[in-house]
Amino acid sequence: MKKLINDPASVLADSLRGLAAAHPELRVDLEHRVVYRATPKAAGKVGIVSGGGSGHEPLHAGYVGPGMLDAAVAGEVFTSPTPDQVAAALAAVDTGAGVLQIVKNYTGDVMNFEMAAELATAGPGTAVETVIVADDVAVEDSTFTAGRRGVGTTVLLEKIVGAAAEEGQDLASVTALARRVAESGRSMGLALTSSTVPAAGKPTFELPEDEIEVGVGIHGEPGRKRQATAPASDLAKLLVEPVLADLDFTQAPVIALLNGLGATPLMELHLMYGEVAALLDAAGVRVERRIVGNYITALDMAGCSLTLLRADDELLRLWDAPVATPGLRWGA
Amino acid sequence: MKKLINDPASVLADSLRGLAAAHPELRVDLEHRVVYRATPKAAGKVGIVSGGGSGHEPLHAGYVGPGMLDAAVAGEVFTSPTPDQVAAALAAVDTGAGVLQIVKNYTGDVMNFEMAAELATAGPGTAVETVIVADDVAVEDSTFTAGRRGVGTTVLLEKIVGAAAEEGQDLASVTALARRVAESGRSMGLALTSSTVPAAGKPTFELPEDEIEVGVGIHGEPGRKRQATAPASDLAKLLVEPVLADLDFTQAPVIALLNGLGATPLMELHLMYGEVAALLDAAGVRVERRIVGNYITALDMAGCSLTLLRADDELLRLWDAPVATPGLRWGA
Repeated sequence: MKKLINDPASVLADSLRGLAAAHPELRVDLEHRVVYRATPKAAGKVGIVSGGGSGHEPLHAGYVGPGMLDAAVAGEVFTSPTPDQVAAALAAVDTGAGVLQIVKNYTGDVMNFEMAAELATAGPGTAVETVIVADDVAVEDSTFTAGRRGVGTTVLLEKIVGAAAEEGQDLASVTALARRVAESGRSMGLALTSSTVPAAGKPTFELPEDEIEVGVGIHGEPGRKRQATAPASDLAKLLVEPVLADLDFTQAPVIALLNGLGATPLMELHLMYGEVAALLDAAGVRVERRIVGNYITALDMAGCSLTLLRADDELLRLWDAPVATPGLRWGA
Repeated sequence: MKKLINDPASVLADSLRGLAAAHPELRVDLEHRVVYRATPKAAGKVGIVSGGGSGHEPLHAGYVGPGMLDAAVAGEVFTSPTPDQVAAALAAVDTGAGVLQIVKNYTGDVMNFEMAAELATAGPGTAVETVIVADDVAVEDSTFTAGRRGVGTTVLLEKIVGAAAEEGQDLASVTALARRVAESGRSMGLALTSSTVPAAGKPTFELPEDEIEVGVGIHGEPGRKRQATAPASDLAKLLVEPVLADLDFTQAPVIALLNGLGATPLMELHLMYGEVAALLDAAGVRVERRIVGNYITALDMAGCSLTLLRADDELLRLWDAPVATPGLRWGA
């Protein structure tokens, strides 16, 4: 294992220290491993918190900033943060209007964020709502999940809900919006290589030199099948077809995310997006907004995923609203 | 070789088609392989053109947009664009104020951009100035280079010079500024793995599982030495010390770029930046601005590079000016 690290045991702490040095506009609580905006949101606005295991950067800490998250809670690599960590973040960002927490559907995350909500409600009296993202169409139930896994829709949801909170929508409205977005997004991924968790020191799974994992999870969970590598135009079908089979994306404008899993060059991501876009166009899907790049990664995994979100004028308006975070930034 | 491509022969064309689909704010001339702003800069302002071999994305096409480049010319992977391609771009962006072209110091690029300048001057009568970036302190003369290689300072230069052109500085001023920036930047990189050029189908060089290449070039050119992998805190010294030994960075504010070479996760880049920042601080270097991420890559190479630019109030002001490109965006 060759990595730019000091010691597998200190990867998260060392990385958060570097994040703090790189981004003075963030405040990093190294004790609780929570990343906040250095300048908090105005009082009276709903707080937005997310988090989960580390190793998916820029998710979540890279989405802290005006127009998106107020705090991101970092667990160890591919490991849920503890309820105490999350509760600290929930209390810290509550300015009186309550907090929405955004949770990817992994058993540990769901349990720990739920306990955190109870702690924050019982202790400082913070009103907490929860939205769970479970958008991965690859498989039902997985290594760390009951139901579907939560992946790319999380990025789009954090952006849209962050905009709604920023403009002053109340907790009930923000929560209803979050649920609507969570229900309207679908994802599918594929891996060319495994990732390697620093503490494990070896690849999470073995993949022969000429095979890919179709429907892989962002922690290396098994997908639907393995098959021989194929041209990008065929790989694009493996992403587009299951997503379109699961939800009708032809009746509304769509926001698309073509996401790199960490080790795939941008040149290949652009190429894949070209193939995906052509298939979507042929299927009558109207892509009104799109982003291509590394947005929700799996350490050093090579591969990509596609996320489509069924939008409407309101979601497009919130998508277009200014955002200023390390990972997503426009109009500000 | 597992890659998200169709055919090694069509990688560039397919990728540019995907770039066009992903970024409607760009106009991609697929015939000449030049990427322009969809909405050109106002007439009377100096045009800024760059380009080179592909495989370094987001450099250069990802830096086309308001506040940075007017056009980026794409050669095949790790191969210089032709004079005809470059001349087409030079002529297209000239609104009467002339054009500055930014060239990384590789023999093929220098020759072809020079010939392009002659073609554009002799034909459409475009006034062309050239700045060459040769900032890599690793080695003198290299596989594709006489003198030093051009790397990370290119990104910082394109940003700063783009801002100057945007605010209406004339060709002489913009050129003088470009030369000053080129002389004030220094870089050093290291690789954990080789990259694989699609047309070659195998890694550019072989690196044992426990070794790194110190001073690697962005096409896999040999560096200063190979050595055993080491903790990030030691690797950081291998980047910082040769850069500081080459130019005094303690007498002025500094802009720092900690750059990923393509396959290194953001988590590791943050971690490395933390180590680099601590060393710079201890050396009395005052980092006033910094960016951390994949800005000038080498396909699927794992590793990173450090670039420092000796700035002043004027360079900081131009750095802070609004920029709106796929790869760099703020304040707009």
